[in-house]
Amino acid sequence: MDASALAYDAKGLVTVVVQDRLTGEVRMLAHANEDAIRATMTSGEGHFWSRSRGAPWKKGETSGHVLRVHEVWADCDRDAVVYLVDPEGPSCHTGAQSCFFERAMGGVEGRALPMLVRLEDALEARANS
Amino acid sequence: MDASALAYDAKGLVTVVVQDRLTGEVRMLAHANEDAIRATMTSGEGHFWSRSRGAPWKKGETSGHVLRVHEVWADCDRDAVVYLVDPEGPSCHTGAQSCFFERAMGGVEGRALPMLVRLEDALEARANS
Repeated sequence: MDASALAYDAKGLVTVVVQDRLTGEVRMLAHANEDAIRATMTSGEGHFWSRSRGAPWKKGETSGHVLRVHEVWADCDRDAVVYLVDPEGPSCHTGAQSCFFERAMGGVEGRALPMLVRLEDALEARANS
Repeated sequence: MDASALAYDAKGLVTVVVQDRLTGEVRMLAHANEDAIRATMTSGEGHFWSRSRGAPWKKGETSGHVLRVHEVWADCDRDAVVYLVDPEGPSCHTGAQSCFFERAMGGVEGRALPMLVRLEDALEARANS
């Protein structure tokens, strides 16, 4: 499907979930307009729309922490997409790897991580101990 | 952090990314108000707010496909959360495992999946062949 086939809202935006394509970690949540989706699909780097600044935004433009986008998938009603990425460096403006580090329920680690990644980390730690 | 500490928008909502806690697959994207977040955190089952119906909504109430929520993480600006879940059955109303099956760029499979899961699938297929 083409960028024009997405269901943009009244502000011309879709929601973007940025996910590490290797580990499955959700790195950040953002928004994109049709131009940003098209720029992402043609350049292979993550482009967005900043709602706070009302301006287009390429992740890493100033920080260098670009997102290499390998796949883009829309959901069933086409108002949200997943960017499957190889991230360069941390993805959060705070310097954290991911933006989802505020624990609200359950968990013990410093951020939201699927179990396969935790298992890998645990096995690696055991192998190195 | 408590449900009241999230940064709800003008409509009283935060965005919710529902992620399979084992595989890392992003299953769906939805919204929740403070009551839904609180109900999720106290019951351990995924609650939401339906923007189209203007009503609270518990996933699986009619379908039985409930989401067992083990962790809830908010992002740096607290206007989005990840529910890390064990899903019962498919998560999409279409019957698909995940809502993110509309391919827009890259990929070959039927839906957005992190590589670790694909690798596991490939190894399993090889072992069974």
